[in-house]
Formats: sequence, C-alpha cells, structure tokens
Amino acid sequence: MSTVIKNGTIVTADLTYEADVRIEGGKITEIGPDLKGDETLDATGCYVMPGGIDPHTHLEMPFMGTYSSDDFESGTRAALAGGTTMVVDFALPSPGQGLLDALQMWDNKSTRANCDYSFHMAVTWWSEQVFNEMETVVKERGINTFKHFMAYKGALMVNDDELYASFQRLSELGGIALVHAENGDVVAELQAKLMAAGNTGPEAHAYSRPAQVEGEATNRAIMIADMAGVPLYVVHTSCEEAHEAIRRAKMQGKRVWGEPLIQHLTLDESEYFHEDWDHAARRVMSPPFRDKRHQDSLWAGLQSGTLSVVATDHCAFTTEQKRFGVGDFTKIPNGTGGLEDRMPMLWTYGVNTGRLTPNEFVAVTSTNIAKILNCYPRKGAVLVGADADLVVWDPAKEKTISADSQQSAIDYNVFEGKHVKGLPRFTLTRGKVAVHDGEIRTEEGHGEFVKREPAGAVNTALSTWKELTAPRPVERSGIPATGV
Amino acid sequence: MSTVIKNGTIVTADLTYEADVRIEGGKITEIGPDLKGDETLDATGCYVMPGGIDPHTHLEMPFMGTYSSDDFESGTRAALAGGTTMVVDFALPSPGQGLLDALQMWDNKSTRANCDYSFHMAVTWWSEQVFNEMETVVKERGINTFKHFMAYKGALMVNDDELYASFQRLSELGGIALVHAENGDVVAELQAKLMAAGNTGPEAHAYSRPAQVEGEATNRAIMIADMAGVPLYVVHTSCEEAHEAIRRAKMQGKRVWGEPLIQHLTLDESEYFHEDWDHAARRVMSPPFRDKRHQDSLWAGLQSGTLSVVATDHCAFTTEQKRFGVGDFTKIPNGTGGLEDRMPMLWTYGVNTGRLTPNEFVAVTSTNIAKILNCYPRKGAVLVGADADLVVWDPAKEKTISADSQQSAIDYNVFEGKHVKGLPRFTLTRGKVAVHDGEIRTEEGHGEFVKREPAGAVNTALSTWKELTAPRPVERSGIPATGV
Amino acid sequence: MSTVIKNGTIVTADLTYEADVRIEGGKITEIGPDLKGDETLDATGCYVMPGGIDPHTHLEMPFMGTYSSDDFESGTRAALAGGTTMVVDFALPSPGQGLLDALQMWDNKSTRANCDYSFHMAVTWWSEQVFNEMETVVKERGINTFKHFMAYKGALMVNDDELYASFQRLSELGGIALVHAENGDVVAELQAKLMAAGNTGPEAHAYSRPAQVEGEATNRAIMIADMAGVPLYVVHTSCEEAHEAIRRAKMQGKRVWGEPLIQHLTLDESEYFHEDWDHAARRVMSPPFRDKRHQDSLWAGLQSGTLSVVATDHCAFTTEQKRFGVGDFTKIPNGTGGLEDRMPMLWTYGVNTGRLTPNEFVAVTSTNIAKILNCYPRKGAVLVGADADLVVWDPAKEKTISADSQQSAIDYNVFEGKHVKGLPRFTLTRGKVAVHDGEIRTEEGHGEFVKREPAGAVNTALSTWKELTAPRPVERSGIPATGV
Amino acid sequence: MSTVIKNGTIVTADLTYEADVRIEGGKITEIGPDLKGDETLDATGCYVMPGGIDPHTHLEMPFMGTYSSDDFESGTRAALAGGTTMVVDFALPSPGQGLLDALQMWDNKSTRANCDYSFHMAVTWWSEQVFNEMETVVKERGINTFKHFMAYKGALMVNDDELYASFQRLSELGGIALVHAENGDVVAELQAKLMAAGNTGPEAHAYSRPAQVEGEATNRAIMIADMAGVPLYVVHTSCEEAHEAIRRAKMQGKRVWGEPLIQHLTLDESEYFHEDWDHAARRVMSPPFRDKRHQDSLWAGLQSGTLSVVATDHCAFTTEQKRFGVGDFTKIPNGTGGLEDRMPMLWTYGVNTGRLTPNEFVAVTSTNIAKILNCYPRKGAVLVGADADLVVWDPAKEKTISADSQQSAIDYNVFEGKHVKGLPRFTLTRGKVAVHDGEIRTEEGHGEFVKREPAGAVNTALSTWKELTAPRPVERSGIPATGV
Ligand SMILES: [Zn+2]
Ligand SMILES: [Zn+2]
Ligand SMILES: [Zn+2]
Ligand SMILES: [Zn+2]
Ligand SMILES: [Zn+2]
Ligand SMILES: [Zn+2]
Ligand SMILES: [Zn+2]
Ligand SMILES: [Zn+2]
Repeated sequence: MSTVIKNGTIVTADLTYEADVRIEGGKITEIGPDLKGDETLDATGCYVMPGGIDPHTHLEMPFMGTYSSDDFESGTRAALAGGTTMVVDFALPSPGQGLLDALQMWDNKSTRANCDYSFHMAVTWWSEQVFNEMETVVKERGINTFKHFMAYKGALMVNDDELYASFQRLSELGGIALVHAENGDVVAELQAKLMAAGNTGPEAHAYSRPAQVEGEATNRAIMIADMAGVPLYVVHTSCEEAHEAIRRAKMQGKRVWGEPLIQHLTLDESEYFHEDWDHAARRVMSPPFRDKRHQDSLWAGLQSGTLSVVATDHCAFTTEQKRFGVGDFTKIPNGTGGLEDRMPMLWTYGVNTGRLTPNEFVAVTSTNIAKILNCYPRKGAVLVGADADLVVWDPAKEKTISADSQQSAIDYNVFEGKHVKGLPRFTLTRGKVAVHDGEIRTEEGHGEFVKREPAGAVNTALSTWKELTAPRPVERSGIPATGV
Repeated sequence: MSTVIKNGTIVTADLTYEADVRIEGGKITEIGPDLKGDETLDATGCYVMPGGIDPHTHLEMPFMGTYSSDDFESGTRAALAGGTTMVVDFALPSPGQGLLDALQMWDNKSTRANCDYSFHMAVTWWSEQVFNEMETVVKERGINTFKHFMAYKGALMVNDDELYASFQRLSELGGIALVHAENGDVVAELQAKLMAAGNTGPEAHAYSRPAQVEGEATNRAIMIADMAGVPLYVVHTSCEEAHEAIRRAKMQGKRVWGEPLIQHLTLDESEYFHEDWDHAARRVMSPPFRDKRHQDSLWAGLQSGTLSVVATDHCAFTTEQKRFGVGDFTKIPNGTGGLEDRMPMLWTYGVNTGRLTPNEFVAVTSTNIAKILNCYPRKGAVLVGADADLVVWDPAKEKTISADSQQSAIDYNVFEGKHVKGLPRFTLTRGKVAVHDGEIRTEEGHGEFVKREPAGAVNTALSTWKELTAPRPVERSGIPATGV
Repeated sequence: MSTVIKNGTIVTADLTYEADVRIEGGKITEIGPDLKGDETLDATGCYVMPGGIDPHTHLEMPFMGTYSSDDFESGTRAALAGGTTMVVDFALPSPGQGLLDALQMWDNKSTRANCDYSFHMAVTWWSEQVFNEMETVVKERGINTFKHFMAYKGALMVNDDELYASFQRLSELGGIALVHAENGDVVAELQAKLMAAGNTGPEAHAYSRPAQVEGEATNRAIMIADMAGVPLYVVHTSCEEAHEAIRRAKMQGKRVWGEPLIQHLTLDESEYFHEDWDHAARRVMSPPFRDKRHQDSLWAGLQSGTLSVVATDHCAFTTEQKRFGVGDFTKIPNGTGGLEDRMPMLWTYGVNTGRLTPNEFVAVTSTNIAKILNCYPRKGAVLVGADADLVVWDPAKEKTISADSQQSAIDYNVFEGKHVKGLPRFTLTRGKVAVHDGEIRTEEGHGEFVKREPAGAVNTALSTWKELTAPRPVERSGIPATGV
Repeated sequence: MSTVIKNGTIVTADLTYEADVRIEGGKITEIGPDLKGDETLDATGCYVMPGGIDPHTHLEMPFMGTYSSDDFESGTRAALAGGTTMVVDFALPSPGQGLLDALQMWDNKSTRANCDYSFHMAVTWWSEQVFNEMETVVKERGINTFKHFMAYKGALMVNDDELYASFQRLSELGGIALVHAENGDVVAELQAKLMAAGNTGPEAHAYSRPAQVEGEATNRAIMIADMAGVPLYVVHTSCEEAHEAIRRAKMQGKRVWGEPLIQHLTLDESEYFHEDWDHAARRVMSPPFRDKRHQDSLWAGLQSGTLSVVATDHCAFTTEQKRFGVGDFTKIPNGTGGLEDRMPMLWTYGVNTGRLTPNEFVAVTSTNIAKILNCYPRKGAVLVGADADLVVWDPAKEKTISADSQQSAIDYNVFEGKHVKGLPRFTLTRGKVAVHDGEIRTEEGHGEFVKREPAGAVNTALSTWKELTAPRPVERSGIPATGV
C-alpha cells in the first residue's frame, strides 16, 4: 500500500523544487516526477514540507493534584491538525524520584499519542542515583537532552552547583543541557513583595517575572555550560535580555541555541491588563508575554539565526483550573496552548510578511530541532528513507482561530480571533494521513517513541576544543621557594 | 561510462552517512549502498563532500599593464588540487567601459578553465548605460551578484550615491550587492601621510588600512543596502570591526553575509614586520592581515553563523611583480594566493581543533555560498541530479605546504611551512577525476560557466517586508494651514 | 554695587550645599553664609545653579533669502527667560567664502545679544585658504570648535576626504571637530524617491532621514576623527543608532561626546503624522523626532554619561516661513525653537522623574559643555572668580508652556501645552538680573563674546597617546630582495 | 599654626590652575595667589591634588588563625608614602556574628591609623539580627556601603535570596550595595576539578577563576540590584566580561559603578606561569590577573567613564603566609599589596601615556569615590573648608619600585622593578605633613574615622524613578470570571 503526494512543491530547510513524493511503510521511498501509488494526495498549489516538530510540550502534566488538560491523545491530535507531526515532552521527576521511575510514568501516558514523540529528561534534584541513572537514560533509553529549571524555587529548581554537576555529567555522556532560565530566588522574592502589596491579579504574574530575571539566568546558564563543556539549549527565550546573552555567547563561539515560542512572537503583555480576569489568567505562562521591543528581537533572531527553533511550551489548563489562582496569582497554573496554531501563526506573521523565507520556516519549525536533537534526517527532512512525517501546506487556505473549532481539550484559545493564511491540506504521520483536507483522521496510539543517540557532531567538536584548550600545570623545579 | 565512489562517508552541510555515489554524464545519478560502475574510486576512510566553491578569485586580472599570474588554467588547476571545484571571478570594467564589454573579456579568458566557474559583475562607475546593461547581465547572462569597491580611490571606487543607485537597481532586478568595504578616501589620506613620513615599506600597507576603515565601510554599505532594500554580501571580512557591523545588522533582521578569507583566519600582521622585504610584500593584500583578536572574532563568526563563507581572494603576483613597489608600498600589487590551500588549511585549523564540525566545514566552503549565489543544489550538494563536483577527503593525509610542489604559477606560498592534515584523495569536476590520489589529471577547457538566476528566496522575502513597511503619506484635508 | 543671592541651596555639577553668593563687577566674589550686598535676591526654597549654556543655536541664520526669525536679541532673551545664560552659535561660510569673512557677519549680528555667546566655526568647503584661516580663527579669534556637515548635499556638505583634512588640521591646532551626522548622499536619494512617489508632506521629511542614516554618519565621523587624532563632538544625537556608535567608540577609549536635544528627549515622531500640515511642518528639523525606543536610549545616555550635553539646535522659523515647503517637504525650512524651554523641560522630565539628579542636570545643561568648549570655570561654575551667570531655580514654580507667553519671535511652540514644574526665579547674566521673578529685564547688547583657548587637556592626552602608538617603519637591510 | 603650599598648580577632577593653598586646623582655609603661613611647602613644578582615596583595603584581616600582614599602621603609612590619604576597609563579620560586634573589632584595630579611614560593612550571612543592625550601622555609625561576597563558598558567600533581601534593605536605608562578583559555586567546582587533575600550583588559582565566572556574577548582581532598586558598586572589576555587564547596565540607565584595581590594569596572567612558585603565589588574588585584552578594556573604561575608581584590594601576606598553599593552591592566602604604588603606577601608565588627563587621574583616584561614598567635598576636593588631605605631586620625580625600600610590612612587591615617573613630594593628612620630600613623618593614631551619610543624590533619584515605574494592579470588576 503506497501513497503519492502529487503536483506539489517540496520545500525543505534548503531546497524548493517541484516533485512528487511516494510513501510506503511509513517511509519516503521515492521523490521525483510523475510518481504513482495506491493512494494519491493532490498537492496542487501546495508546499510539501517536513511535518512540524514541537520540542516543548507538557501533556497531561501533573499539577497540584490534577493534570494539564491536553493529554497525549488530544495534544497530538491538535498538533497534527496544525501540521505538527512530532512532539517532545518533558519527563519530570518529583524531588527525590529516580529518573527511570519518572520515565516509566511518561511511557505510560504516551501510549495514546497520535503522532511520534520523544522525551527530554528533567533533572530536578541531584544525587548519586541521578548521576548514575543519567547514563542509563542516555545509553539505553535514547534520550540525550536534559532539562534544568532555574526557577520554581522549592519545587523543580536546581542551584548552580547542581547545574554544574549535571552539565559536567552531560558533557561526559555526550548529552545536551536544556534550561528554563529565570532566577527563581528573585522571582520568589518579587512574588512575595507583590502579594504583600496587594498586587494579586494575573498582571502581577508578569510583574514578578520581568525580562531581567530571564536574561540573568540565561547568561548564568551559558557560563556554567561553558565551564562544563556542554552544548546548551535555552527553552522559551522570550526577551531581548535573554536573546542578547545568547547572541553574545554565540559571538564567542559558544554552542548555544535559543527557542522562542509562537506566543511570545505574536502576543504581548497588554493581554495581562485585560479587564477580564479570566482573559488575563488564561495567558499566564512563564516567561510571560513581553512588549514589542522583545518581539522585534525574537523575530530578528529567527532571521539572523541567533535563535533556532519556534516551539509552544504547550501546557493547557482550563479556565476552571486557571481559577485556582483567584486572589493569588502565584497559584494560577502556568501554561497556555499553541500546538495547533504554531505553524499557521508563524507562516502568517513570518512568511507572509517577508520576515522569513519558506525554507527558514521549515528550518525553525522542524529541521533545526531535528538536527539539535539528533534525530535528523529521520525527522525534519524530505528525503528518501526518512519517516513520512509530512505536511502538505496550502498557502491560500485561511481561517480565523477559535476555541470553538479547535482540537485542544480546553475551553479557550490565546490566539482567538487571529486570522491566519496558510494551513495544512494534509498532514501525514509516518505515512498515515491524519489530516485530510480539513477532516481529522488521527489514530490513537499510532505514535511511537523516537530514540535519539548522544554525542552528535557538535558535542564532539566542543569536546575536542575543550580538550585542546584545557588548563595545563606549570612545570616547576625547586618548589616551593625562591632559591630552593 | 559511470564512476562509483565506494566505501566512503558522505558529509554534507547537514548530513553524515555512509553510502556510495554513482556518477554518470557529469551528474550524480545514485546514492546508496553497494553501487557498481565502470570505474571505482575507493573512499575507504574518507569523507565524500561537495567540492569546494571559492567565490572570490581574480584570475589573470589586468594590473598596471600586466596580469595576475594565475590564469584560469593554472588557477583552476590549483583549485582542484586542493578540493575546490568551482570558482567565481570578478568581471571588472575599466572606468567608462560597458558591463557587457568587460564580460566579453572575461568570457575569453575563462575558456581555459579546468573546473566550472561563474562571474560576479563589478560596478566601477555609474551611468545610464551601466543601469541598462545591469538588466541584460542579470536576465541574459545569468549573473545575479554585483561587486562594488568602496576603496581604490581614483580607480575602481564608487561613491555613496552611486552605491545607492546601483543597490536600488539590484533590488529591482533581484540581485545581490557585494562590497569591498574599506573607506577609500581615508586610505588614500593615510597612504599619503605614511609616504610623506618615510613609511614606505610593506608594513605601511597594513598601517594604511587599519581595521577601523574596514569596519566603517562595512557599516556604511549595510546602511545603504538596507535603504535600497537589497541583500548584501561583504567580501573579505577581516576584522572584528567589520564583523561587529555585520552582527549588529543581522541582529536587526537585515540580510547580510560576511566572507572571511582563509588567510585572515590563519595568518597575522606580524608577517609584515618580517625583516625580508619580499616576505612582507608577498603578503600584501587588502584588507591586510590582522592580529589574534581579529582572528578569534572570525572563527567565532564561522561557529555562530554570523559569517557564512570562507574564500581566498586569490590574486597571485610573482615576487618580481611585487617588487614594483620597492620604495613605495602603494605600488605593491595587492593579492596573495590561497586557492590550493583553503580547504586543507581550514580543515586543519578548523575541524581538527574542534572549532568546526565536518558539516560546518562543508557549509562554509561550499554549500552556503551555493545557496547565496543561487546555484544550489546544482553545486554545493551531494544529491541525485546535482553536478558531480565532489571531493573525496582523506582526514589522515598530511603534508607540509610548500611553493615547490604547488600548482599555482607563482614562486612562493604565503602558507609555506604550514603542516596540514586532511587532503583530497580524489577531486571530481562534473564527474571527471581531476585529482587522483596525488596525481593531477586536469583538462584545460573542461570548465563551464554556471548561470545563476536572480530573485532568490531571500530577495523575495526582503522585498515583501520592504513593501509592507514602506512609508505612506498622511492623508490630510485643508492643506496647508491650520483652520483652512 | 554688589548683589547677594541669599538663603538658597547651591547646586553644581558635583556639589549641593547651602550658601549665599555675592556678586560684584559681573563676577562671583564670595560664597558663604550670611553675606551682605547692595541688592538682595531671595533664593529661599530655590537652587542656585550655573546658568544654562546652549551650545547649539542658529540665530538670524540666512536661509533662502531670508533669516531664521529669532535673532541674537530675541533668541538670547528667550534663553535668559528659561535660565540659559550663554549660547554658542554657528558661523557658516557660504561655499567659497572665507572663514574670517563669515565670522565678520556673525560678529555684526551678535552685537545685540542679551547674554554672553561664543561661536563654532563651520567648515563647509575645503581649500588652502580654509586651511590657513583655521589657524587664525583658533589662535586669534578664540574659537576652538569647528562644525562639519555630513548632510545638506550641494550646500553645506563636505566629503570624507575633506573631513579628514579638516580633522587633521584641527588635531594640529588643538581644536575639536563637530559634526552634523547624517549621510547626505542617501538623504538626497531618499528625498528624490519620496517626492517621486508623491510623498510630499512633512512626514516625508522624517521618512527621508531615518535613524540608520544618522547612525551611519556618526560611525563614519568617529572613524575619521580617530584616524586624524582629534576629539569629536557629535551634535544633535537623536537616535539609538548614533548613540550606539558613540558608546562603542567610548568603550574603545576614543574621545567622543554626544549631544541630545531636549526636543528628541521629549517629543516623538507621531508629531509628523498630525492631520494639520502646519503642526507637522513646525516640527520639521534634522534629525527628525524619533520613537520611544530612541528616547529611552537618549535618557539612558545622559544617566550613564555616554551622552554629555542637552542642547536645542534653536533655529526658529515662523509658520509663514515653514509654508515655503507646501507641496515639497524638502523646501520646509529645517528648525524648531527650544531655547526658552530646555531647562524647565529637562528638569520636569529628568529631575522630577528621578532619571537625573539635580547635579547631573547642571552637568548636562551647563558644566559639561563649558569643560568641553574650554571656557570652564569662567562659565558653568559657581566658584569665586567665575562669571556671575547664574539661575535661581524654583523647583515649585509651575507653568504650562504656550506660544502666547513666550519670548521667542515665532508664532508657535513645539512644546505647546506641556506642563513644567521647575522654573527660574532669577536669571543673572554676568551679575545683571535679566529675569526677576517672572519679569524680563534683559539689556540688548549686554552680551559679550567668549574666547576659548585650544589644546585643552583632552587634546593633549589624545595627542600623547597617538604619538606613542604611531606607526613605525620596519628597519630592513638588503632591501628589496631575499638574499640581496 | 598654618601651612601654605606655594607655587604649585592645583589639579582637581575638573580644574587646573595656579594657586597657593593655606591650611589651618587640618582644613583648607584659603586658596589663592601669594598666600602666607607659618610653614611653607614649595610646590614649584608640582601639581597640588586631593590625596588619594583607596576604597578597598583589608588591613590586619583575620585569616586562618593569623592576619594579613599590613595593619592599620603600616598600611596607612604605605598609603601616605604613595600619596593616598584615606582608606576604606571592610568590617567582616564571621558567619553568625553581629554587624556591631564585628564593627567593634575594626574600631579597635583602626586606632593606629596614620591617615583617615572609613569602613564598608560586610553582609556575610542573613538573619533578622542582621536586618535590624543594618539600620544602626547606617544611622548611628555613619556607614552607607555594604559589601556582599558572591564567592568564597562555605565562608563569606551569600546566595541570591540573601543578596536580594540585603539589597532591598539597603534600598530602604539609602545605602549602596557592594559586591565581590564571582560565582562561588562554580569556582568551588573548578577548584575541586583542578585539584583532582593534579593542577595544584598557583597558576591553577587563575584557572579556577576565569573571567566568565566574574562576568556572570557581575551581571547577576546588577539584575538583583535593579530589582531591589539600589545603586550597585562592583569591586575589583578585572575583565571585559564584567565590564561589559556594567556597560550594558549603564546604557540602560542603571546606577552601577565599577572599580578596576591598579594590579589588573598593569600586570597580566603570565605572572602565574613564572617558574618560581613564590613569584606566582605572591600574585594570587581574586580575581586573578588577566590578559591584555582585559587590560585594554579596563583602561578604556576609565577613559570613557564606564569604570569609575582605581583601587588596590590591598591585603598583604608574606611569602611565609603564601606558602600555606604549597601543594594546594586553594590554601594560598588571597591578596597582594598596592597601597603605596597605586598612584605612581596609574600616573605612569595612565597620564604619561596620554590615556588619562591629570584631571581624570584625580577623578579615578579620589574624587569619584568620595562622591560615591558621600564624603565629598570633605574628602576628594581642593576647596576651602575641605579636609587638608593633599598630595603635592612631582611629575618629574622617578624611582624603580622595590620591596627593599617600601613601607609595607611584606617582603616583596608585585610591581618590583617597575620604573615610575610621577611621585609625591609632600603628602598631607588633615594638614599634617606625613611625607616630606622623601622622608616619612607619619604619626600613629592620627587617622580618624570618616562618617558618611546615607541617601545621597543618586539614591534619591533612583527611588523616585522606581516609585514612578512601580507595578500597579489592574482595576477589575466582576472578578474572577467572564460575565460574572
Ligand atoms: Zn519552562
Ligand atoms: Zn515548559
Ligand atoms: Zn577586495
Ligand atoms: Zn578581491
Ligand atoms: Zn544640524
Ligand atoms: Zn544645527
Ligand atoms: Zn574581593
Ligand atoms: Zn577585597
């Protein structure tokens, strides 16, 4: 049983050309003119692109005795509806919980996924057990990316010595360090101060996490990664201050990547000043939305390559869940949706405006992260032998985003009312057509875990350089004294 | 008649994998395991990479009644010997000469080329004729890149209004602006001042062209390109000041690329202080070599992506020609060699040290420039259908660079004595094996001109953005006066 | 006949203390407690500060057969009304006119001044005559500052080689180079393009002079000054791009100062989009007003010391004069008022908001420029022996700015409607009370020319450094050839 | 009994003029021509300048059961010998010790001082007691500056939440926060790693404290100070990374000062590679010496004003004490001398080269810090009423620095062999001539404690701005829900 995508224009991170694509057994088996197959998908007027990869989701994430409302089923359904064919979720150990234990929980939840997925492992505390299990996670479980929270004090946050120890360990194992970069100590102090001053509404969430605290933590993580000799990936880079730290690091030859979210690219802090508490609370996420100056910075980063990936941090809570925080903004669950809208929003505000070329669009939504995560070209490519995770993108298709018609399980959409132009005609996950011209045909459990090898080319190069420039002792005779 | 490269590891700008490559009719016809062909090239232990592209050469360039000593034959022979399979030379009209006229001269010279080549067109003066011929050059002659000299006052230099006019024209035609960025007015003043002070030796060449004058001109070209709405490519970026201007532009979303030379990456200004006049004079080029601070900046630029391409500005003059400038450094012909050594030197100092991954090596020596010049994936790729311009790279092969054994026509080598590790085992130009395990088998006249289309994806995106943000008149009634 | 200012708090650039001030013969003769004199001015609740110095005015400036409407009488009257006790005007030779000739014209006009004044000499063309007269101007006429226009192509603009020649000359003479920094070539091209596109209104003035062209020219002037070894003063720094260039230069140890105008600190580009043509045209000046991002940059520059002086570029044209440019924005005379409002506006938006300390206010309105111009402590100080140019500043005094009640000769005020808090109670020019509690008591012709010596401490230090680091020839034997 | 300094040129931070100075009762009583007094000091050919203030010393500092070898007697004697007339030492509570307790210890030690002095209070732990005693220290003890160590983990180091709490407290009290900025967690990790690798010599001290860890901590302290709304003074800024963070902060209008040491300005890291262990160990201090790139940055900072003060961190340990660290660099006591040499070294390398004007020399050695510490113009000025802390500086006087002839109690000098030109002819401490033409006439116990008031002008301005821009709650009706 083969499928052929016909009459489209293939757009990858570095090529644009007309060709048909044949798919068989979940893989791309041929690319060329005039292909034939059992099933045909008409891509006339469309771009055939690698399916999107969202490297930052929190599906069915435990929170205060409940869970984020999009699970691996609804979350990946929303993803596919918007042209995204792979998600990477974060396996989060509770403090004291082993990494493998936590991973088991994520394995269990992810069996319902409609598309392929992978995990980042989080290091939320430090011990010999964690040190040891990291090796198993890397070598046996196919996970080479480890997340560290510099915020959420008293919960997920780790300190600088723990960061260094974990980064050093990753350097040995050929892994990549990820950070949520906000100074958790200062955030906690600002939260307390704001609450004490009667600043209890959702806007105080934004006040408690200013760009400065994100910039600082980003800068600190970069230094620690440099000292430990490990590549660093900064999640949800939302502001000029953090972007500046990344740029500065890159211009010194450091191996650092930044990941803006589609929300920060297109929404701003005025959302928190909305007179409707619910409206504001639904936008509460960390880091919070910023102002136009920061948006301009993020877009320029995508254009120049100082920022590499557009993600969502999809972590959907219902209005009811958000209302846990009435009267105390620190209790509003952090997170928004975005999985379904990332690709159309970025196309509309990025490609249609001329900020990004279509190739750059593919790069930042799919190919770059596949390379960073070391699952390229299985994912992120339109090549013979690659997984047939594809989106047939219709640049003329339009809609107005609305919660009423979305796949996500929640009752609102932070992009409500935005008009987008550029939407999937078909989305294929390993050859299976999950979106067919507006109709959702996902299959629960179709998704598989994607293993990723450590010690990619960047790790290897960095280690070589660090070894070459390592400190050497001075040879001395007659130690210690002058004349001895 | 087919050739198969067997048992190698293919390395491209974004992939590393084991596969054989079959070539027929000058094209890559198949990539995969266990291929067979009429002829076999053993790539065991080697990397199979896109042949290098050097976008900056001056072969048989007219100079003071003579010519630079490497012509299209010896120059491209040297290129192939070092793994470079395409060069782009500059067609330089004399002041007053038409573009098409000049192009005819370059067509004549290039018939002897051993490998494929293309041209950049230079705009060395401005008139309606130039304005008109630019369209012909772009649309009929397949040249989309136009060089402008901001230095060489009284000869090739154009002023800011001419730059703007030409850039604006290129914006309309979908071309790309190139600049040699040094402030020619200030260079001329410094030259006069140094000569007057008795500073007549080759070191004064360096004194007369400090990093500041390059940084300034780079910054100016960027502004003018931004105003005209055209992508800008800065040739021979040699210093932090120029790199800083490029970084700053990129971080504002501007479309600018920088091109360091292998010479500036690996040689420094101390060469000009050599007690042997010949030694110093042989290194005279513009911009001159810089100090370590600048070298570090250039390497970091390659690592971070703020600089895109490594070239040579190959323009070889013999010691005899250099001696035109005894007693007056301003008369020393500007230019050094490098075509044969660019790839081994960059591999040795870049990949072997861990500064660059092998994929990044391919990107900066071949793929990036092929994309910028809009001849990708015909060039710069290892893909079915691409030209079989390939290098089989042996990372274990070593040599010490010496003029005694080089292909170039000149009597010295600026890299004399440098030990390199990483050299071509085979170099193929459109399928023809030009270098066979140390033996040179080039064929004069084998090279063909490579046409390049205008209006690439970056041009299109930039034009869209510029149109979107163009100034709009304010609608007013009752002009002019208050109350009217 | 002596005057005593009693019960005030003296505020200088570095001191705040309570003391009375006695004045006799136009000089400060004593500072201390309980002073007595023939006349007493009550400074209870007030700050006694050095009178403001506005180093950038164009009084009675020739323009298209007419003159800017504030002459030395009305202009200096407006200055005194606002607490400014010295102005520095620009002597502008016509192309071809000698410097001394032009100076004679300015001498004639300035006889009517109500307060002291000095001149900057402009270099608007280059010749041996100009070269020679520069020495006379410096040594005999007491002028050490020379202005250069990088814009106004075809009129005042000089090219890079002329800039270099003049800067070099100033380096020898111990002078300081001033620049109006905008790329005149590009402005001219943009003007033509806008006019051709039907963009003829005053908003097109802003479009034709974007921040980029100012940033570029500032950067270029800095490089040329560095090459020539002369301190540089950049007038009317209006944008982040120019400020960035200045910051970058300073952080390399270069001797550069920047001068924001009170207009750019407090007004923005939206003024040009006003539906009333007159409103917009009255705000036409070069550089034009910018957006909030640029304003923030300028304020931060004053706070951090990367910008040094707040001026006005006072050049007042009536509405009638402005209407020369109906239908062609390039004909709108460039210039706005500000002399009367600079100090109250800066106090209100700077000191009252906490951006500046009162001492910093004095520094940027008076003391810094007195030092730069080398007339400190005769001007800009509250010291025994200094000229009694003083303002008794009442921080509680308020008003709403309005053209109806201003001293300036024009029929509008760009700050119309702004509410200021902080105004002069008394202004003294060399001891004469020119403003007495709201009453204007100026005396036409009271003002005197202030001579200023060359070769200040900064010039001397810079010359020492440049000499120490000057290029030295390499000593060679056996030139030219190897082995010779 | 009066003293007159005759025939000198007074040089202050902003003035250079010829005048005599009369001194009586320890104060300056008159400045002018032809003064007479009981005693005359001939200043012919000399500059009369404010005595130096060294705001960073550790005299008789407790360390591992012993003390740094210069106490308040020998230390201030060395200071006076070099033209420095006031020192500010750090009162360091042990963890758990109260601030007032610690202050008592410093009061006891300082009774032997030969010149005036003040204290910074260190916050080395956090508790309600510390919080409360801070108020007493500020209001009753005349100390407005509080030091915080971000390094020395397990000893003096405080964490980010403690920093924030202390900074916030200082904001309320009108104090200034000082930081030793190095990331103590990372330093500790690097120390352990180096020791484990057998890198035990003094050069490993430098390896364990790279510029990156200082830059990071500086950046972090700036952010925390900004959040708390307190001015920040960064001690011993030694590298471009830290300077960059300070520059970046200043260019955002933040109130931050940086203090390079004379050692970092003139000595480099090669000292640690000396084959003599003693030589290297004697130079062990934190931060360690850096390379030329960093030195250039520091000098440029002094020139541009982004760095404000030159200090010494004088903390002298004998060779015998240094040898505690044989075999374990982490045990080498941290500290070098400098008090006696700061002024001649800075004059020689700063003023004589043209990097600094004489006025700038006074600013960075005396006046700037007097203003920051809020003891200007009592100290740091040549004004009637100011303390007669003066140095008569002979720019023609030369010597070669040597431990053999120094006042300091230790047996070596890190500047050994440096030739300086520019030395005190006389040094006066409150009118007493402590250095008389090469002869030391200090008087033990002459020195007095200098009280310093809180809430200076910068604190007031910053508080105004922070109040103006403080977060405000959004007014909402119908909380929480939509439509409720
Ligand atoms: Zn996060
Ligand atoms: Zn997240
Ligand atoms: Zn060139
Ligand atoms: Zn060239
Ligand atoms: Zn101007
Ligand atoms: Zn002007
Ligand atoms: Zn310290
Ligand atoms: Zn210290």
